[in-house]
Amino acid sequence: MMDYGREAIIRHRASRGKISIASKMKVETMEDLSIAYTPGVAAVCLAIEKDKSESYALTNRGNSVAVVTDGSAVLGLGNIGAEAALPVMEGKSILFKGLADIDAFPICLGTQDNASIIQTVRNLAPCFGGINLEDIAAPRCFEIEESLQDLGIPVFHDDQHGTSIVVLASIINALSVVGKSIENAKFVFSGAGAGGVASTKLLVDYGARNIVLVDSQGIIHRGRTDLTPIKTEMLEITNPDNIEGSLADALRGADVFIGLSVGDTVSQDMVRSMADGAIVLAAANPTPEIWPDAASEAGAKVVGTGRSDFPNQINNSLAFPGVFRGALDARATRITTRMKLAAAEALAGLVAEPTPEYIIPWSLDPVVVPAVAQAVARAWQVEQG
Amino acid sequence: MMDYGREAIIRHRASRGKISIASKMKVETMEDLSIAYTPGVAAVCLAIEKDKSESYALTNRGNSVAVVTDGSAVLGLGNIGAEAALPVMEGKSILFKGLADIDAFPICLGTQDNASIIQTVRNLAPCFGGINLEDIAAPRCFEIEESLQDLGIPVFHDDQHGTSIVVLASIINALSVVGKSIENAKFVFSGAGAGGVASTKLLVDYGARNIVLVDSQGIIHRGRTDLTPIKTEMLEITNPDNIEGSLADALRGADVFIGLSVGDTVSQDMVRSMADGAIVLAAANPTPEIWPDAASEAGAKVVGTGRSDFPNQINNSLAFPGVFRGALDARATRITTRMKLAAAEALAGLVAEPTPEYIIPWSLDPVVVPAVAQAVARAWQVEQG
Repeated sequence: MMDYGREAIIRHRASRGKISIASKMKVETMEDLSIAYTPGVAAVCLAIEKDKSESYALTNRGNSVAVVTDGSAVLGLGNIGAEAALPVMEGKSILFKGLADIDAFPICLGTQDNASIIQTVRNLAPCFGGINLEDIAAPRCFEIEESLQDLGIPVFHDDQHGTSIVVLASIINALSVVGKSIENAKFVFSGAGAGGVASTKLLVDYGARNIVLVDSQGIIHRGRTDLTPIKTEMLEITNPDNIEGSLADALRGADVFIGLSVGDTVSQDMVRSMADGAIVLAAANPTPEIWPDAASEAGAKVVGTGRSDFPNQINNSLAFPGVFRGALDARATRITTRMKLAAAEALAGLVAEPTPEYIIPWSLDPVVVPAVAQAVARAWQVEQG
Repeated sequence: MMDYGREAIIRHRASRGKISIASKMKVETMEDLSIAYTPGVAAVCLAIEKDKSESYALTNRGNSVAVVTDGSAVLGLGNIGAEAALPVMEGKSILFKGLADIDAFPICLGTQDNASIIQTVRNLAPCFGGINLEDIAAPRCFEIEESLQDLGIPVFHDDQHGTSIVVLASIINALSVVGKSIENAKFVFSGAGAGGVASTKLLVDYGARNIVLVDSQGIIHRGRTDLTPIKTEMLEITNPDNIEGSLADALRGADVFIGLSVGDTVSQDMVRSMADGAIVLAAANPTPEIWPDAASEAGAKVVGTGRSDFPNQINNSLAFPGVFRGALDARATRITTRMKLAAAEALAGLVAEPTPEYIIPWSLDPVVVPAVAQAVARAWQVEQG
């Protein structure tokens, strides 16, 4: 197999990164200059001053998304800082462009103070059509996203909601493969960070009634005294029987395992202890919580990972490009729960006949973005009446 | 003549503005994705985490400039706000791209509070190679730029220094046309805003000894009680004879008039009262302080304006693209006075034989940026020893 890291360094150095700015209007003559810049541009400015919504028609704002990070939780690398996060944000930017023709610009912030991040994003809002928050550590990410929902443009933390949409889509099809219902299935999450929390909420919104969250200290239950506010809040919608113990305890008799944590934390015995027709989505990267062949051998009926070299890849790029395309097209002012549910259903619906090996589309499949975008835009329009 | 405003609205609407993001790396296959994004990109991130300067080699940072405004002093339109400023910043962006192959991104801030602007720019610094401050009202612009000089990347307020470089270059050649020296010439500025203050400082750095500034209340002299701190500070290097009165009083016997204020404020009688071989740079836009034919008729020997349809256009685009190109190429951490002087001399030097009609190059002349960039980069290197 290719050494991707080595190849990545070589190619990034050769091209000095991955993005550049392109001009949509030429400036070769004085006449060009008089139209694109002074004096002609003054009329464009005044049209927007009179009606700010004209900024969507007369500038690139309506196709422009800021990919904002503070570098505190980048990939599986942790708190590597703003500069080191830039290659990931540029990668996100070219995915936005390649998959959804969205102009996304990386904004790597040299602060990890929530108030300062929130103020900065507020200050940036007038020149963007949307904000994609990225790789900001939990629980800070929750406060930041929550505080910015009144901004007037969509603010979407991809590690939360991109993940939740793809997880829900996968679950919809996986449950249909094993013939179980969302209401009666017993779910266990390993990982109660951004992805775990948002996926739990979206599964509940879709009808799930029995979800147990497990963090590094074991099952999240009402007797724990070490819980962050968000984990305490999650107890309102999880662990209905208030079970206690370890991940192994949680998995006994469970129908679905969703791993958004760290690799090699689920044994074959733990999978064997699950209910018949077990679903195992082991999405830790690069090493899954349990490797797919081991999970299948232990009786899992449907298996997914976060990797592209196995079937059923749980990959955020199935969601965020279409979600933003739809939100920008509909000029939505935020991303609502209905829009996320619609995105998940649209994604699931792209798989006509789900099988154990095929519950979710391939992330570069060109049908994905238009389907998700349409569903998201329609959901916003319906919701606005 | 074409109605530039009308044409600008039509073209901006047709293309939805002027900039977009372009991808320098393809993402068509899973292998592409593994190199541009996960898992390969992790190695790129770690290389930068280890050595932040690698962000210049492995991302687009080293070619990336933020064009930052708060929309408080846009063109001659005044305080039109962030959204309405965006067409100008996009225009600046395509000029950066077209003239100097720099990737400049518009950042229009929804705040006009200095502390908030300063903090935001500080937060943005890790993902940019330089900051071009633009169209921020005086005197706030001075504090903002000054506070950011320790950022580690060049922070350059174009309305100050872009203007000052082009003014000095024009003056160098205009003085040679009329056979006068910088040391003995008597200068009068109309306008003591960003451009007037910075041009005065740079002229003094180049050797000027007699400059009188005039604002809307008349000559700036030591008896005035209504002066802002910056105007008071300017008295340390201007008005050596502490003259008082109006613009007309200041111009009597002056060698050079530099207008960076409002149109139609200089009469032919005022030009007639100037010394023989008068130089009149009437750069207010779109209406000059005095029209060129009127100035010439009243005896001005060299006349320039801010307009492209008359000879000798005082246009910032002669300076900022080359200044940033040179600063980025040299990885300068700020733009020093020597770099500005070098830029002005390089610009002036491009006119081999200055004449009354030709003291400054045409702003789209392709020789301009390389000449300015080289001079700026060399000045930084010399200064660093």
